[in-house]
Amino acid sequence: MRVAFIGLGTMGLPMAQNLIDAGHQLTVHNRTRDKETVLASKGGARRAGSPAQAAADAQVVITNLSDTPDVQSVILGPQGVIEGAAPGTVVVDMSTISPVATRDIAAALAAKHIKMIDAPVSGGSEGARNATLSIMIGGDADDVAGVMPLFEAMGKTLTHVGPIGSGQITKAINQIVIAGTYWGVAEGITLGLKAGLDMDKVLKAIGSGAAGSWGLTNRSGNMIENEYPLGFRVKLHRKDLNIALALARELGVPLPVAALVEQAETGLIGRGHGDEDVSAIARSLREQAGIE
Amino acid sequence: MRVAFIGLGTMGLPMAQNLIDAGHQLTVHNRTRDKETVLASKGGARRAGSPAQAAADAQVVITNLSDTPDVQSVILGPQGVIEGAAPGTVVVDMSTISPVATRDIAAALAAKHIKMIDAPVSGGSEGARNATLSIMIGGDADDVAGVMPLFEAMGKTLTHVGPIGSGQITKAINQIVIAGTYWGVAEGITLGLKAGLDMDKVLKAIGSGAAGSWGLTNRSGNMIENEYPLGFRVKLHRKDLNIALALARELGVPLPVAALVEQAETGLIGRGHGDEDVSAIARSLREQAGIE
Repeated sequence: MRVAFIGLGTMGLPMAQNLIDAGHQLTVHNRTRDKETVLASKGGARRAGSPAQAAADAQVVITNLSDTPDVQSVILGPQGVIEGAAPGTVVVDMSTISPVATRDIAAALAAKHIKMIDAPVSGGSEGARNATLSIMIGGDADDVAGVMPLFEAMGKTLTHVGPIGSGQITKAINQIVIAGTYWGVAEGITLGLKAGLDMDKVLKAIGSGAAGSWGLTNRSGNMIENEYPLGFRVKLHRKDLNIALALARELGVPLPVAALVEQAETGLIGRGHGDEDVSAIARSLREQAGIE
Repeated sequence: MRVAFIGLGTMGLPMAQNLIDAGHQLTVHNRTRDKETVLASKGGARRAGSPAQAAADAQVVITNLSDTPDVQSVILGPQGVIEGAAPGTVVVDMSTISPVATRDIAAALAAKHIKMIDAPVSGGSEGARNATLSIMIGGDADDVAGVMPLFEAMGKTLTHVGPIGSGQITKAINQIVIAGTYWGVAEGITLGLKAGLDMDKVLKAIGSGAAGSWGLTNRSGNMIENEYPLGFRVKLHRKDLNIALALARELGVPLPVAALVEQAETGLIGRGHGDEDVSAIARSLREQAGIE
């Protein structure tokens, strides 16, 4: 397929490379233009000077950006995708942004007969490199079916959840569940450390039962050592939790633990820990418990 | 081995049966005496009129009771284990009780040269029947090694964590982690339901990644259906959380989410849901979000 790929960050760059490797013809654009050169020289991608130019000849436009305002600007702003894309083009936003804004963008595109799919991912930079991302997809069933070969080149667990926005809501749910799960693990570990237990034995005892989780298996080591290599950054998780909390506020759903974790993360970011893995929320509890 | 088994409730009865099946000679006692007859008629267990009598001829005394005061009374009270047990006897408390009280009981027993091990379990009545319990063990290494054949007849994951009390602290950690994990899942599901998503698809999308947990896999169905078959009772989980919170208070460890879940469970118990599975904590969130 002829694909425009806009946003070549930590995630976008390897995802675009996987599309090239799968035989798709890519036109790439990045705000910091020199990021384009890797794919242009090695992978044969064409470069475009703006989102509008990138979209001009594409069947599918993929955006992979940091936050809601970036996506709004790249798609709807001056020299944006909407100015270049032909009617019938499918825009696939793989950023993690507000589901409400997503629906507004989709409506603006629809007025020009441009289709939109939201498809945020989880699985981190490792998943982006190895094409093992989990992709949470919202949009019209036919549109989604049409771009499925692209998703297959970038990810492993591909789930069409529902209409436009559903992918973003699913991603928000993912981050809420991670918040509660990691925090629960952190409370347990903090108590055990303060009590002087051998935490490896404790985790062996409880890890295979009802307390078990991906976070317990894969992130409790960080919490015990109090070292938090990436992973997924605290500051990005806080961004995602704020998307979730804004949606929840709109829908009238109280999320006390997501809010508590967001506050703990705000404290961590303020103290210079925003680039650590999100399991660093255990830092707050360790500090409050006076450990070390 | 000659074993006295005191406390033949939902957990104790099948655990005692498994010891009989493994060839151990049991003397059984229960406050409600007619519970003893099942094991006496079918399994050939002897009956004893009091904890002291049960302990008189035993090498090992196992207690499996509801709460801290029960264990204190059965072991240290009038006609208690301490009055009947010979020096060198090993008392194994498999109840879930306060680790602080556990150490006090052990000290009182030690004054009479009676040893103590704490060995609370997880895995529910199903684990008790099928001898697949996880047993979290605290005590002297030699004492623990001596009773290991008994644990092997009752459980599968047998972990000697550390000195006396360590089993109870490990169980407390287990319940804290469950509180956070289940609550996180409940927040995510509540948001998804209110947003009108197909939750089976959402769970398929997020269940195998960093949001994954035993609770998400095995209890999210309850939360979606708003029906909470046992499982593990809300009122027992609240009891265990209060043990954890008391210990945490003593050690100076704040556990905000364990405390929040304990409060939600208090509300559930007050509204008549104390005998539902602990995943019923999703009820509070559903109600606060006005779902149904």
